[in-house]
Amino acid sequence: MKPSFSLRLRVFNLNCWGIPYLSKHRADRMKRLGDFLNAESFDLALLEEVWSEQDFQDLRQKLSPTYPAAHYFRSGIIGSGLCVFSKHPIQEFTQHVYSLNGYPYMIHHGDWFSGKAVGLLVLHLSGLVLNAYVTHLHAEYNRQKDIYLAHRVAQAWELAHFIHHTSKKADVILLCGDLNLHPKDLGYRLLKEWTGLHDAYLETQDFKGSEEGCTMVPQNCYVNQQELEPFRCGIRIDYVLYKAVSGFYISCKTLKTTTGHDPHSGFPLSDHEALMATLCVKHRPPQQNPSSTNGPTERSPLISVLREAWTELDLAVAQARWWATFAGYVIGLGLLLLALLCALVAGGEVREVAILLWTPSVGLVLGAGAVYLFHIQEVKGLCRARAELYHVLGRAREAQDLGPESQPALLLGHQEGNRAEDQ
Amino acid sequence: MKPSFSLRLRVFNLNCWGIPYLSKHRADRMKRLGDFLNAESFDLALLEEVWSEQDFQDLRQKLSPTYPAAHYFRSGIIGSGLCVFSKHPIQEFTQHVYSLNGYPYMIHHGDWFSGKAVGLLVLHLSGLVLNAYVTHLHAEYNRQKDIYLAHRVAQAWELAHFIHHTSKKADVILLCGDLNLHPKDLGYRLLKEWTGLHDAYLETQDFKGSEEGCTMVPQNCYVNQQELEPFRCGIRIDYVLYKAVSGFYISCKTLKTTTGHDPHSGFPLSDHEALMATLCVKHRPPQQNPSSTNGPTERSPLISVLREAWTELDLAVAQARWWATFAGYVIGLGLLLLALLCALVAGGEVREVAILLWTPSVGLVLGAGAVYLFHIQEVKGLCRARAELYHVLGRAREAQDLGPESQPALLLGHQEGNRAEDQ
Repeated sequence: MKPSFSLRLRVFNLNCWGIPYLSKHRADRMKRLGDFLNAESFDLALLEEVWSEQDFQDLRQKLSPTYPAAHYFRSGIIGSGLCVFSKHPIQEFTQHVYSLNGYPYMIHHGDWFSGKAVGLLVLHLSGLVLNAYVTHLHAEYNRQKDIYLAHRVAQAWELAHFIHHTSKKADVILLCGDLNLHPKDLGYRLLKEWTGLHDAYLETQDFKGSEEGCTMVPQNCYVNQQELEPFRCGIRIDYVLYKAVSGFYISCKTLKTTTGHDPHSGFPLSDHEALMATLCVKHRPPQQNPSSTNGPTERSPLISVLREAWTELDLAVAQARWWATFAGYVIGLGLLLLALLCALVAGGEVREVAILLWTPSVGLVLGAGAVYLFHIQEVKGLCRARAELYHVLGRAREAQDLGPESQPALLLGHQEGNRAEDQ
Repeated sequence: MKPSFSLRLRVFNLNCWGIPYLSKHRADRMKRLGDFLNAESFDLALLEEVWSEQDFQDLRQKLSPTYPAAHYFRSGIIGSGLCVFSKHPIQEFTQHVYSLNGYPYMIHHGDWFSGKAVGLLVLHLSGLVLNAYVTHLHAEYNRQKDIYLAHRVAQAWELAHFIHHTSKKADVILLCGDLNLHPKDLGYRLLKEWTGLHDAYLETQDFKGSEEGCTMVPQNCYVNQQELEPFRCGIRIDYVLYKAVSGFYISCKTLKTTTGHDPHSGFPLSDHEALMATLCVKHRPPQQNPSSTNGPTERSPLISVLREAWTELDLAVAQARWWATFAGYVIGLGLLLLALLCALVAGGEVREVAILLWTPSVGLVLGAGAVYLFHIQEVKGLCRARAELYHVLGRAREAQDLGPESQPALLLGHQEGNRAEDQ
């Protein structure tokens, strides 16, 4: 590869709000999205909330001349909603489904049924290995009393960990998606600190779009205005994040967002705003210090955010255990009630009432049984994330104690970082 | 690293058969296992079916002087049963839970509740990066009519894919575990062909142990003799697999198995036999052709096994769809019955019978609903694996058409494999 090597990468991201029968003007919006993507001819278009596989197939057909490669990530009962269209051949793809994703009995929220995931594409562009990730984390329904906070933190951790373990030979890492995290939220900080990813909005040389880079804005006619009331100019929850490793340098030349309208006609493409980034990848001259893109060098923010996440997960473990115990008591109560009803029926007393109460009692036992099993599984998932966090926290502290020289080797798993006790 | 570099690695693997209340002499066997591991002082001990976390904690306490590092992989409702004890510090760990793992309504088999997974440990040994994987795939209850075949094939594929994506910077890859696959089974061939892993039993210079390397033998008093009847000397379903990448060479100096008895006293440690391998990692001289360990070079067996797996998954998709449709019809029937019962109760006819039938009808609708949702999820999981297989199959064919020079680059995602159309 020549030292003058330079690669321009145009990326598009949108949460499409494509819920069949529920999302307004879905067919029309999908049609206009297809026209727009064809006209713009991005290198990569990463989409979330394409819940209907038929919508993906229609888009695929329409986009195939411009984007010959495409993939739909299947998971859960409804699907992950994630898909990608690429101008370049996809070398490899895989996905990771988050182990925690809300509660099955919160049917009106529906996240549990969707099988939220992170999808990975590996592309080879002019000899450069690009790992592109697309994801969608659990929605936030009530910021004041967010019962999904720990699940979202665990998802952000799994996302960061998945990127960490699958990108070790990548030259450039790109993450797009709807994180359902505000820029100051724990999950966002955890993800950025552990992966060393840069936020296109904060780093770009040229930004055009909505105020403060918001991706849900009150100007958008599909947005629930009441939900956005506490946020004057909207919220920023969709992101383009990137980093370069191993001798490359990446920068964001331009970042655009839509501003509550279709870029051409009046109506917006979705209730979220689209992100359009132009990234530039260059060879890093050997004298340049690669630490800024090669991983986090300042450890204390990482330690502090890991500690914060650990505390959050620890609280959630206690709460999940409480729910499992509570469900256990309800099962016991239900079984007692069933025994009582059997005795009443056998004794011939208030027979009809006893028979009438049979159904809700069986339902109670079965329902509580399902809730018990679910929360036992939740405890396992939270404990898993907590153990991984704890391990990384230990290693981050160790790295801090050893001083700056040993940090990248210890934390980023570099081959050079062999230590005496490994013998 | 010196060219004379040489590393000896002693590895232990055992499916411990540690089901609380069900497995015979569990406490005694766990105690003796701990004593044995302490006495032998392996580099790594990888265990499966340690279903009770308390058993792991007891072992951890006992083994901590010899194996200071340990990890228990939590997942599902019961757990993955996987754990590891290491003489060397664990740099990193993570896990992947298989998306398909049997059926929740097959309660007597119980695999669905266990959350079968693959665990990954990253170790740094004398400057060498070792990725050690431990796994346990879905059990085979009836070889003649194996309803879990497609799930096990999908698990083998996910395992191979997980290793492929997480080991790109590893020098040595080690996989131990109970694969529940015979050496000629599709899943085993798929795993070996796609990852390029070598089987310690087939490659070792010195084997001592049970006939044909079997890991479930009729001599073991805990084994169900009836199940082993068709196999004279037993079955080989537990494995030590390995490969070296990037300038290293790995060989298996010795492989031992137990032979239905504890290595010291009479009673066996489990219903499975333990595997004990001594591996030797050396620097590969630059003139040596690395192709034999650097990935599969002979593509046609890969293409053939990928095609076979694709066909198996395709059949399973059709079957899962059939079950979902069937469950859909049962839901309809149940709802019809409920409406009829309501009408009977309202009309005052055979009131008591109608009320009595209310519970089973509600149960029918809810049960069929759960089965419907489960099989819809199964379809998604099978389609996901099928799509990944199809993609790799396409690339393998492409590589075969292009000739041997382009094969490693195309298939193993090497950085050098950039192609003109990637521009």
